[in-house]
Amino acid sequence: MGHGTNRIEDMSSPNNETAANARETVVEIHSVCLPPKKTTFQKLKKRFGDVFFPDDPLERFRNQTWRNKVILGLQSLFPIFTWGSQYDLKLFRSDVISGLTIASLAIPQGISYAKLANLPPIVDSSFVPPLIYSVLGSSKHLAVGPVSIASLVMGSMLSESVSPTQDSILYLKLAFTSTFFAGLFQASLGLLRLGFVIDFLSKATLVGFTAGAAVIVSLQQLKGLLGIVHFTGKMQFVPVMSSVINTRSEWSWETIVMGLGFLIILLTTRHIIGHLPKGLNPPSVNMLYFSAAHLALAIKTGIITGILSLTEGIAVGRTFASLKNYQVNGNKEMMAIGFMNMAGSCTSCYVTTGSFSRSAVNVNAGARTAVSNIVMASAVLVTLLFLMPLFYYTPNLILAAIILTAVIGLIDYQAAYKLWKVDKFDFFTCMCSFFGVLFVSVPLGLAIAVGVSIIKILLHVTRPNTLEFGNIPGTQIYQSLKRYREASRVPGFLILAVESPLYFANCTYLQERILRWTREEENRIKENNDRNLKCIILDMTAVSSIDTSGIEAVFELRRRLEKQSLQLVLVNPVGSVMEKLHKSKIIESLGLSGLYLTVGEAVSDLSSTWKAHGQP
Amino acid sequence: MGHGTNRIEDMSSPNNETAANARETVVEIHSVCLPPKKTTFQKLKKRFGDVFFPDDPLERFRNQTWRNKVILGLQSLFPIFTWGSQYDLKLFRSDVISGLTIASLAIPQGISYAKLANLPPIVDSSFVPPLIYSVLGSSKHLAVGPVSIASLVMGSMLSESVSPTQDSILYLKLAFTSTFFAGLFQASLGLLRLGFVIDFLSKATLVGFTAGAAVIVSLQQLKGLLGIVHFTGKMQFVPVMSSVINTRSEWSWETIVMGLGFLIILLTTRHIIGHLPKGLNPPSVNMLYFSAAHLALAIKTGIITGILSLTEGIAVGRTFASLKNYQVNGNKEMMAIGFMNMAGSCTSCYVTTGSFSRSAVNVNAGARTAVSNIVMASAVLVTLLFLMPLFYYTPNLILAAIILTAVIGLIDYQAAYKLWKVDKFDFFTCMCSFFGVLFVSVPLGLAIAVGVSIIKILLHVTRPNTLEFGNIPGTQIYQSLKRYREASRVPGFLILAVESPLYFANCTYLQERILRWTREEENRIKENNDRNLKCIILDMTAVSSIDTSGIEAVFELRRRLEKQSLQLVLVNPVGSVMEKLHKSKIIESLGLSGLYLTVGEAVSDLSSTWKAHGQP
Repeated sequence: MGHGTNRIEDMSSPNNETAANARETVVEIHSVCLPPKKTTFQKLKKRFGDVFFPDDPLERFRNQTWRNKVILGLQSLFPIFTWGSQYDLKLFRSDVISGLTIASLAIPQGISYAKLANLPPIVDSSFVPPLIYSVLGSSKHLAVGPVSIASLVMGSMLSESVSPTQDSILYLKLAFTSTFFAGLFQASLGLLRLGFVIDFLSKATLVGFTAGAAVIVSLQQLKGLLGIVHFTGKMQFVPVMSSVINTRSEWSWETIVMGLGFLIILLTTRHIIGHLPKGLNPPSVNMLYFSAAHLALAIKTGIITGILSLTEGIAVGRTFASLKNYQVNGNKEMMAIGFMNMAGSCTSCYVTTGSFSRSAVNVNAGARTAVSNIVMASAVLVTLLFLMPLFYYTPNLILAAIILTAVIGLIDYQAAYKLWKVDKFDFFTCMCSFFGVLFVSVPLGLAIAVGVSIIKILLHVTRPNTLEFGNIPGTQIYQSLKRYREASRVPGFLILAVESPLYFANCTYLQERILRWTREEENRIKENNDRNLKCIILDMTAVSSIDTSGIEAVFELRRRLEKQSLQLVLVNPVGSVMEKLHKSKIIESLGLSGLYLTVGEAVSDLSSTWKAHGQP
Repeated sequence: MGHGTNRIEDMSSPNNETAANARETVVEIHSVCLPPKKTTFQKLKKRFGDVFFPDDPLERFRNQTWRNKVILGLQSLFPIFTWGSQYDLKLFRSDVISGLTIASLAIPQGISYAKLANLPPIVDSSFVPPLIYSVLGSSKHLAVGPVSIASLVMGSMLSESVSPTQDSILYLKLAFTSTFFAGLFQASLGLLRLGFVIDFLSKATLVGFTAGAAVIVSLQQLKGLLGIVHFTGKMQFVPVMSSVINTRSEWSWETIVMGLGFLIILLTTRHIIGHLPKGLNPPSVNMLYFSAAHLALAIKTGIITGILSLTEGIAVGRTFASLKNYQVNGNKEMMAIGFMNMAGSCTSCYVTTGSFSRSAVNVNAGARTAVSNIVMASAVLVTLLFLMPLFYYTPNLILAAIILTAVIGLIDYQAAYKLWKVDKFDFFTCMCSFFGVLFVSVPLGLAIAVGVSIIKILLHVTRPNTLEFGNIPGTQIYQSLKRYREASRVPGFLILAVESPLYFANCTYLQERILRWTREEENRIKENNDRNLKCIILDMTAVSSIDTSGIEAVFELRRRLEKQSLQLVLVNPVGSVMEKLHKSKIIESLGLSGLYLTVGEAVSDLSSTWKAHGQP
């Protein structure tokens, strides 16, 4: 091994007397270390742990007796064991009050959301799922129930293939089956610790998606508001609008006037009137429908409503946990929500999750533990058993107006405006999901928005930034010349910082871009009669990873610069990059003065070496 | 605006006397600048330029007269105008010698590659395409012709749907149509400046893909070598092997012995014997076949052979250009290769590109300009017109042996071994594309490998590294504690470096991970009775980009740390990140001591502020 490797492994060994002397007069030079040696298995284990177990779930089990380990295990499977033993009357009082409060919200909400999903109001999902969540969930404040976005997506996706009025039994079967698949999907994500899948739904995507879905559902309500009988089953903007216009002859002016009047009352008062059918949740296992005809639709609907409700549930759980300063465990939440939906699908419930409005009311009413969910479930049970339906024959136009009021609130203009102001690309993603849902379809709109988000990541990796650095006079700080006016070029050097990992997808671009920087710098020097360029310093601090194509690009770049009598120097490669550079022998070929820890040290050392050799 | 903003915009203004005095005794503090203001349009323009025009093609046109601009424009459309005027007899002599040399290679190569593509040997592609390339291409050394990988992919993809023996006319039509689409696709990539698409085929993918395709084609030759008559048309490993075994009764022992003998001769001597049919390239525009029945197949085959041949052609062009120290223009090359294939498809040629073997011979024989391609084309023309077919009735077994010899050389064990040694994930990608091609199908195998490469990028972004930094004693350098044994923790501080952009896809993870770092650090402090943790410093040097979700995560992190009486300090955000942080008002909320240019300055300033306030 050459000098370079000596410097890597042992900074104190004097490997070149003249250069070392020249160096010491200016600044102390530090070697670039390799990270501690690890086998491939160790590396894989660490990487695997980082990807699938970022929360280090086994940490608590270390150095514990077997008895404690069993208790901890039970507690981590059923969080109720964690707080159950300290539960007292004071906590119970708070939970009863909050539980009753959310129950009073749950029943009218449940009915109007069921209508959004085109389901009969008998499907009330505020009984079984909250009970299951209170045992399995890790959030103390999450109030469980159906949510608007999952309801309307389920309604729009299923009713495109099956009519909820003509084929009501099949429709109901498909709704339960979708719920079952939603639960299965959610629980699997948690079990397989693939929770990061929901991270790909960015806030920008969700803002656009929700607004798009809200517009679609609002348009569907025109059927009720205008009193149209023959209406399209489709869900896109164009067919709905053309259906509205083509059925002009069916518009009933009495209905329109009444509907608009009611809508105005609702929009100004924002009170929702409930109507209560009588009866308990009947078992619905026999309604699960696994035959081939509509299975694909059920699975697709299940996955999409599952991921949407999961995203909402986990976001709501995290919000209130952070407000009250405790942690919710993402993977555990997924399993809890998943199991409660699987159980729900067998007891006449459709997709439920942690509801934002309900949880907010819950927290404000003073909830302290998940017992408030149990209280709510009990109150709902009592209501279902003993209260008569109040508005069983509520006219369609009133329901339409109720739903319109609920979904219009989902369109979050302000969030979209903030996206526009801070990040234009995020706004673009938001618009893609909005218009995708509006004009293409619900699942495709979502897919388009996720695709656009991923393309943004790829584009950032494919065409990364390179910056020219200069020295801030009187310091060892090197910063972007464009940004810091006080920074100035160091004669003889071109200092470039690469702001991205070096991958197959960008290595050709970066190589060409760096050569172009060199050409431009040489032209500038010619124009200004400056000192000749002798060395290109590549600051690798932000190159967080490299692959074999990237390594070859560095090799190739060095070779091409050498042909132009230019030296290539690497500064501060991070651990994993350093390791791969070392393995591929590029470090050796760079030689003694090809690798430094800081830009400052590289500049001082090379300048003094040139002076020692009598070069200007 | 608060103190923080003052510090951002003007480093010299004394904004807090006590703190400023305390500071000056220790180290000079530099402000973090915002990048110069730009409108959204300017930013879009720059980003657009970086993505689509990284080579700045209009640079040469600046400050030129109109006459010069026209000449430069012509030269950039037809590179022949660049070197044509300086062309002289000396250059011509070199080009004639090299042109004749590659012509002697072109004819036997053309015939055996045509056989790979299951095309009759009359399809000789070494005449029209080289002529077109010599006018449009920007490489001086690229020798154009059919290449093995594109030939065998075309052969395997087309023959899975159409039999080349039973349906030979349709097969030929489809081959020309695919070639047309390949050219169209290549030229469009160049015209739309989407050249980066081919960057997604990493070397690892190509090594595995080529080896897989070579194995498939080798297996197909068992038909000829074993003398089997009824053979499968499929291309995967399993059906081919079962077809070989199921037709045991058809194995002809005479053929096997002769074939193996010939194969051994070929493998030891590696000479390829050519056989020459007579005739010129007939026009084949009428053979282009755009009817619906097989159009999808033709387009798919065109795109895949197009992208593969483009990758090879551009890589070869770049290799020799870098060897001879000039630049080839990627987008221009794409257009040249695209147009030559579109023209080729109308003159009985199938997919051609820059061939590595041919170009290597060309350079070694002393080629100086693209005229060597013209000479080669003329020599091929003369041969086609006047030489009799030498081995018109070459037995199948000899052709099979010739092809086997050619494709076995495509399996690059050494490259795969190097991938394994340097980067296990690249090796995994390579294996995915190898087994994908072998067991699934050619296009799906390629798609799987590209998918795996993209997932690697996404995984790196989704689960980024965070490192704990320490101070290297006696310096202002802060580096990873794990890597630099001499680095030590600074009491009261937890210094973390984030090695990735902060995106929707990783912001929740990073937030949780940083909180976990904090918990772990506090546990360590408790165990060792160290000084209490007071401040988390986040080194943002490697955070090359941020979006709205990332900004919210920083906000949220700060809020949660504050609840634990911990301060959050950001260090050195890059330009674009700084701008977005500023727009979202987070900078103001961080206050005076929430933003520093270097870790060293943050540590000194905060320590001295604490001292001034009498805190330990």
